[in-house]
Amino acid sequence: MLTLYDSAVSGNAYKVRLILGHLGLPVKRIEMNVDDGSTRAPGFLEVNRNGKVPAIVLEDGTALSESDAILYYFAQGTPYWPEDRLERARVLQWMFFEQYSHEPSIAVVRHWVAHLGKTPQNEPALPARIAAGYRALDVMEDHLKASAYFVAGRYTIADIALYAYTHVAHEGGFDLGRYPAINAWLARVAGQPGHIHITD
Amino acid sequence: MLTLYDSAVSGNAYKVRLILGHLGLPVKRIEMNVDDGSTRAPGFLEVNRNGKVPAIVLEDGTALSESDAILYYFAQGTPYWPEDRLERARVLQWMFFEQYSHEPSIAVVRHWVAHLGKTPQNEPALPARIAAGYRALDVMEDHLKASAYFVAGRYTIADIALYAYTHVAHEGGFDLGRYPAINAWLARVAGQPGHIHITD
Repeated sequence: MLTLYDSAVSGNAYKVRLILGHLGLPVKRIEMNVDDGSTRAPGFLEVNRNGKVPAIVLEDGTALSESDAILYYFAQGTPYWPEDRLERARVLQWMFFEQYSHEPSIAVVRHWVAHLGKTPQNEPALPARIAAGYRALDVMEDHLKASAYFVAGRYTIADIALYAYTHVAHEGGFDLGRYPAINAWLARVAGQPGHIHITD
Repeated sequence: MLTLYDSAVSGNAYKVRLILGHLGLPVKRIEMNVDDGSTRAPGFLEVNRNGKVPAIVLEDGTALSESDAILYYFAQGTPYWPEDRLERARVLQWMFFEQYSHEPSIAVVRHWVAHLGKTPQNEPALPARIAAGYRALDVMEDHLKASAYFVAGRYTIADIALYAYTHVAHEGGFDLGRYPAINAWLARVAGQPGHIHITD
């Protein structure tokens, strides 16, 4: 069976549970604490030398990390990964947008506000991260005004990648009420067959 | 002809010039200033709504952004993108590592130190970014001790993605002398057919 090094507070780990849910693939989950250093302990570094969850171990013992690369691995040959070369590049464009322009603001603000609490270290950095988060949401809203999903007019791993932290952005204080197109898309994603909740 | 919205100071833009050089594809280059707000001006936002270089416009007028997604697009059907499903996922794993754990420290420190200069805004953030940069280099060094390239034993777009900012990390003050395996890999990359220099 697949083994997922998981975290209940990580949207990145939730992405993996989402695609496995859609595909009906069972997985053994190992809950990791992302704040106490255990993802940087020697045992886990053998699974992911970069010391981050999620990481997944395949049935043959091969370990794979980086949430969006794991999504790609499982989406091969399924409707969640398009056939067309440009559409595939476009899925990746949105996934790299997610990891560079969205996650470091929206996910990090949520983690600081909802889980760690404000500290002398993170509080000075908060306004710039919040502004960057709203810029990312603005980019998404403009795209979703004209498109039901991010790529190819249908639900792909680009939507899974962006859904994970967008749907809990309010936990970091982001006002999603400003974004009607995002809200309509969040509802479409949550209505997909096999969808599971982040707390499931 | 292809049109690249380019920047001489951007390693991300250099990645695109590198793969186009390997493939012998001619490109019209439009140099953008990444510090004066022109990447956030309305004309450019029609090319990349996220306001970042590089972006490339294909011959049919389609625009594509995110450097690593552009690498993927051009690598299709070439030796720079492996055939095997797991190797493909592994290439993406290293590219997401690059954008999340490497570029925000190594590229950003270089930009602050070598181009913008230290400011009251960036100076307090510098030590944490430098530490994160060395962690990323440590991960690369450990991998390259046992492998000539990042994936599949040969040069792929994972190497292009990681080469772009690693080979100029010293401009941000990183001491690459600590990393013999990285230095040997940098030389292997620079020896690839069609390799171009970042200032070419």
